[in-house]
Amino acid sequence: MGLIEASVKPHERLAQELADDLGRVNALIAERMASKHAPRIPEVTAHLVDAGGKRLRPMLTLATARMCGYAGEDHVRLAATVEFIHTATLLHDDVVDESRQRRGRPTANLLWDNKSSVLVGDYLFARAFQLMVETGSLRVLDILSNAAATIAEGEVLQLTAAQNLATTEEIYLQVIRGKTAALFAAACEVGGVVAGRPEGEVEALRVYGDALGIAFQIADDLLDYGGDAQATGKNVGDDFRERKLTLPVIRAVAAGDAEERAFWTRVIETGEQNDGDLNMALDLLARHGAMVATRDEAVRWAEKAKRALSKVPDHPIRGMLSDLADYVVARIA
Amino acid sequence: MGLIEASVKPHERLAQELADDLGRVNALIAERMASKHAPRIPEVTAHLVDAGGKRLRPMLTLATARMCGYAGEDHVRLAATVEFIHTATLLHDDVVDESRQRRGRPTANLLWDNKSSVLVGDYLFARAFQLMVETGSLRVLDILSNAAATIAEGEVLQLTAAQNLATTEEIYLQVIRGKTAALFAAACEVGGVVAGRPEGEVEALRVYGDALGIAFQIADDLLDYGGDAQATGKNVGDDFRERKLTLPVIRAVAAGDAEERAFWTRVIETGEQNDGDLNMALDLLARHGAMVATRDEAVRWAEKAKRALSKVPDHPIRGMLSDLADYVVARIA
Repeated sequence: MGLIEASVKPHERLAQELADDLGRVNALIAERMASKHAPRIPEVTAHLVDAGGKRLRPMLTLATARMCGYAGEDHVRLAATVEFIHTATLLHDDVVDESRQRRGRPTANLLWDNKSSVLVGDYLFARAFQLMVETGSLRVLDILSNAAATIAEGEVLQLTAAQNLATTEEIYLQVIRGKTAALFAAACEVGGVVAGRPEGEVEALRVYGDALGIAFQIADDLLDYGGDAQATGKNVGDDFRERKLTLPVIRAVAAGDAEERAFWTRVIETGEQNDGDLNMALDLLARHGAMVATRDEAVRWAEKAKRALSKVPDHPIRGMLSDLADYVVARIA
Repeated sequence: MGLIEASVKPHERLAQELADDLGRVNALIAERMASKHAPRIPEVTAHLVDAGGKRLRPMLTLATARMCGYAGEDHVRLAATVEFIHTATLLHDDVVDESRQRRGRPTANLLWDNKSSVLVGDYLFARAFQLMVETGSLRVLDILSNAAATIAEGEVLQLTAAQNLATTEEIYLQVIRGKTAALFAAACEVGGVVAGRPEGEVEALRVYGDALGIAFQIADDLLDYGGDAQATGKNVGDDFRERKLTLPVIRAVAAGDAEERAFWTRVIETGEQNDGDLNMALDLLARHGAMVATRDEAVRWAEKAKRALSKVPDHPIRGMLSDLADYVVARIA
């Protein structure tokens, strides 16, 4: 890889490689977010869709389909489906989290209201299902409807797991599978399915997406305790203030003594947080090696993602997808 | 029809006729609302599902399928699908309307929180899609995903039409199609589709469901200005207080003079409502014949529903569905 190529991030290289397909996905999204009767729908959707997300999920569908030699049109529909599902969950998440900022802009629930975010999200879910039905593939419908159920289940689980120190690593994994990995996995799997690849390859793509999503989310959760707001769009300590049990905290809680447990009980379960508590939490995370252990866990998942790719035939896009797995954890190197 | 039979309401007769099927629908609902990881999901769902709804929508699917001679199992899956979609929309509606009571019990958003209602609703939508995918019928998937989009679009439209005196009867019709008739129509149409009936009959079933739903919702909106809370589960004037533009008000506004228009502008658009305003509104509705005109409109839709049934072969269930159309408007006779 030349010096110039190396300076271009993997998702940017994918975006260049798939520029034509991505253009058609964007056109399809614009067409399908329209509503003859309710102009509020495209207003709210455009606010989020145009806000410069990286289109990572639809790109996974386009990339896997192209890598598998697919030459039809369904991958564009499925990529738009995946982006609609993602956008719908963002709208609902922001209502649930009472968020005020997303991608550096005020959230839809703040600009319009919670009602619009809930109902426009529902509309996008329905539009996503219409789009996937158009592919006529029951296999694809099965994969994506299962992903939608896993996503919603993970969100509810996160709700009940938050503020609960008894949350285990197993529950955390369920939560982030729902939150992130289920859609990553489905986005990759359907790329192989529309291309008609053998089961072994389709499964490898699913495993790649799942592991990539888990690595991505663990890295995100780690950055919440040590990233810069510029790079992540989040402020350090957001999860702490929202009393979410993410992997760094789960590790630190497990390693802590009675006094530390009292601290975590107060700030996470009781929710009584004072000045200096975030710094205390950061100290404890560092003292017990929870940051390093969490980073190592993310790297392990990224490695798993790369190993899965070895089961699909070589292709220029395969290298980019492999680099992407490195990239999501390079943010926390 | 004997005197004893006549005293049993049509939906109760349908429930007796379809008791076995309904039992299987209830069992399937109980099975599918479970969640291995998130017990909050069945808690919230059971609160609503067990609250004694009439299961009208799933019964329409069972009834139309049986009337069409269907002997398979997919009508049970589709009936559960329809009930899940309905339950999901109720959960989201109660968040949007900030409701405190539904079917005579506190709403889920009050007992748990808005977050749970939003996310459990999403889960039920996803479960609904999984169930319909299991039927393996792309036609059914097309019908139900279109219905889901119409429902969500109607809800958003209602949001923007509320508090707006410029709302026309055409917009009102769009809103109630989304709110009620789209799911009634789809519930009936898929009954004919799984039974493999000819297009003409399938279309007649769709028209029946659509017209029945519209008659049902117009009657409901009329009862909001003149029913008793016992029968409807709503208090007189709920829509007035929520500043919803329903048919009685649209008619009265259209017929009013400048002074009346100022009144409507104040209570509906500005939202400044004082003691006596509801009585004033009721006076105006009566004075302009808006109540009678609205009732006549509901009856016209019920007649249309019955006429559509004449296009499907005679069957004991057909008589019950015809009586059901009479019954939804008999509430306002």
